[in-house]
Amino acid sequence: MSQEPIKALCWTERSEPESVYPDGINGAVADALREAGIEAETAQLSDPDQGLSEEALARADVLFYWAHSRHGQVTDDSTARVLKHILARGMGFVPIHSALHSKPFRAILGTTGNIAGWREEEEEEHVYIVEPSHPIAEGLGQKFTLPEAEMYVEPFDIPTPDCIVMISSFREGEVFRTGCCWERGLGRIFYFRPGHETYRVLFEEPCRKVFVNAARWASRRV
Amino acid sequence: MSQEPIKALCWTERSEPESVYPDGINGAVADALREAGIEAETAQLSDPDQGLSEEALARADVLFYWAHSRHGQVTDDSTARVLKHILARGMGFVPIHSALHSKPFRAILGTTGNIAGWREEEEEEHVYIVEPSHPIAEGLGQKFTLPEAEMYVEPFDIPTPDCIVMISSFREGEVFRTGCCWERGLGRIFYFRPGHETYRVLFEEPCRKVFVNAARWASRRV
Amino acid sequence: MSQEPIKALCWTERSEPESVYPDGINGAVADALREAGIEAETAQLSDPDQGLSEEALARADVLFYWAHSRHGQVTDDSTARVLKHILARGMGFVPIHSALHSKPFRAILGTTGNIAGWREEEEEEHVYIVEPSHPIAEGLGQKFTLPEAEMYVEPFDIPTPDCIVMISSFREGEVFRTGCCWERGLGRIFYFRPGHETYRVLFEEPCRKVFVNAARWASRRV
Amino acid sequence: MSQEPIKALCWTERSEPESVYPDGINGAVADALREAGIEAETAQLSDPDQGLSEEALARADVLFYWAHSRHGQVTDDSTARVLKHILARGMGFVPIHSALHSKPFRAILGTTGNIAGWREEEEEEHVYIVEPSHPIAEGLGQKFTLPEAEMYVEPFDIPTPDCIVMISSFREGEVFRTGCCWERGLGRIFYFRPGHETYRVLFEEPCRKVFVNAARWASRRV
Repeated sequence: MSQEPIKALCWTERSEPESVYPDGINGAVADALREAGIEAETAQLSDPDQGLSEEALARADVLFYWAHSRHGQVTDDSTARVLKHILARGMGFVPIHSALHSKPFRAILGTTGNIAGWREEEEEEHVYIVEPSHPIAEGLGQKFTLPEAEMYVEPFDIPTPDCIVMISSFREGEVFRTGCCWERGLGRIFYFRPGHETYRVLFEEPCRKVFVNAARWASRRV
Repeated sequence: MSQEPIKALCWTERSEPESVYPDGINGAVADALREAGIEAETAQLSDPDQGLSEEALARADVLFYWAHSRHGQVTDDSTARVLKHILARGMGFVPIHSALHSKPFRAILGTTGNIAGWREEEEEEHVYIVEPSHPIAEGLGQKFTLPEAEMYVEPFDIPTPDCIVMISSFREGEVFRTGCCWERGLGRIFYFRPGHETYRVLFEEPCRKVFVNAARWASRRV
Repeated sequence: MSQEPIKALCWTERSEPESVYPDGINGAVADALREAGIEAETAQLSDPDQGLSEEALARADVLFYWAHSRHGQVTDDSTARVLKHILARGMGFVPIHSALHSKPFRAILGTTGNIAGWREEEEEEHVYIVEPSHPIAEGLGQKFTLPEAEMYVEPFDIPTPDCIVMISSFREGEVFRTGCCWERGLGRIFYFRPGHETYRVLFEEPCRKVFVNAARWASRRV
Repeated sequence: MSQEPIKALCWTERSEPESVYPDGINGAVADALREAGIEAETAQLSDPDQGLSEEALARADVLFYWAHSRHGQVTDDSTARVLKHILARGMGFVPIHSALHSKPFRAILGTTGNIAGWREEEEEEHVYIVEPSHPIAEGLGQKFTLPEAEMYVEPFDIPTPDCIVMISSFREGEVFRTGCCWERGLGRIFYFRPGHETYRVLFEEPCRKVFVNAARWASRRV
């Protein structure tokens, strides 16, 4: 098992407001990773090759990916490159929040990623740890609460996860499979639900911890 | 596939108050099943062979099982008979609520069935359907709400279910994997969380529908 | 649960030699299904809308799909229609043998379907039943042997199946996960390995039985 | 993640002939582990507390367990201690070959561990790697062949494994799920099929590699 630092590529479509995420959601993820000694590179849709070049992907042990309103701009070629690095090279893949409708997430799982509903009213999210022995749950305790959330509600159209690490609930009792693991080809995939471009929630300590744990798990260090 | 009526054995330790469940929780289950054309027999701990005789089990396509405070009185022999009929003959098994600590549930899954906590304060339970295409979800829509519940909270010490059909949430945001499926040997197992001996909740229409759907699925008719 | 006859659409790219499969591999499948009272329609790549029109798919409870050398001719639109009917309407999908490299199989699972090797030397295939309680295993006993096979060998790049019903072995000891089940969206998928366009093996009784069982399972009648 | 050496407890009922396994099968396992820097302790049925004392188990990150003809002599108390350390403390558990009928294996999985048949004729076993990205597959390539084997054949009565790492085939084409992973409570379980007390096969290099990989995986270092 490699003792080299993990190399992460943190990607965004860059539609999140600067007032909320000054360095982008990808910058917020990268900051959490760097604090834990992970080498994090940032990239975005407007970069050459959409920030998902063969070279950038080849350097990455794990790809963090946030997107919301510009899924359609990501080309089939970019999507195919992401899939190839997951399946054939074992690059980890960590789509965040609204990336459930991104082309790479849909293509690697084969499902729509559709959800039954959502609500944008600055409510709390309760995240419960269902599999306390999973590496992504390390240090998270039984639960954490995030101060702001865009609610998502089940059913969530995904293949049955290999492991559901976390389940969330919201104001009216809605529930969601918030932290889901799959293996595809040589690669590991972790979907993480929290986050919305208008809430500073991805700076919260539990989310930063999840990013670090997910980077380690998805790059097969744990 | 058999067109014979399904035969269910509905079992209780019989500690539920008559004021709440006049015919026992097993009677409430049997009533729901009969309304759907299922042949339901009732049995209890004080019957000969603890109500789990070789003959009674041999007649059953599916065993519904509720218990709470008398798990320790069920003998290892009774437990072994239940397991044999599940594994070797394909009898379905539907443990309800506090039966997560019963000997047959623990023995067939190999785990403790422990939960992180509970609360008995007559609160609402929101039950969301996570796998709408599963036979046990038939006719349940996206969710149902039960007026009274003893709260259970994750983590719940069980093997990862083959399928999680339903997830519940409670007043303070607690979540629980409420409807869980496993296959063991030739048999199918469905755990259903709702119900408490002091709440009339198992008479609620959605619970009655779940019992019927579970009887069909666990006896391999769907 | 519907008591209407199951409606199957049996599709082929039509490159199989007439000398071996006079009515095509899809004709051989349809014949087995009809004998069991299933309504089977046949279609092929050269038909309007590639034989996968919106109307034809909408009529189908389950799609049997064989292809080998013309995967690239199936359009992305045809593939998208197949996926939509699986995911959103619950149409069953039964890809056969070399259809592991077809666009719909790859797209619905998200993996390459690649195999480590193959050999075309008219050898025997031993098919062992691993999950005897699965509806697709009904009537098959512990094993069956097919007189001719193109060998496929693991690793097979697929998501971990929900259930592996059958495993095959070949002359030099090679093994393969031959009968694999997945659920995606509202639909059920069954991959069946045997068959090669130059071997009459899909006329063998055990294969005919598998087709019938798979039609029932994938259309959610069992 | 701990950087301390892994501590393994290697246990046997001690019925294997000294002429084949001079230091026992547990000694053969311990030797392979030590070569890789793992601290391996040996124990056997005739030791105090059957070699499965609270203290010995508490020291172990992972328990290797071989038994064949004396399963019945292992007490329910010993079995309960093993289960407690797996479920509640996360001790790994690696039952080998005929340990599929041991009390701890049956109790932790809830199934009989029965197999459809076996044959003791010094034949070859072909072991194919099905999940090449799994930590237990590291360094094993696509397959390995063992010179002698007692054949086991499917169906094998176990819960569907979380991951099947290896599948074996035998002389007459029989197949078996040879390397199977499950998680239960906080613990990881790996069943490994090869080995028979009259064949020196557990000294073979690929088996020694599997022991080391399994020790690392089951003790959560990878």
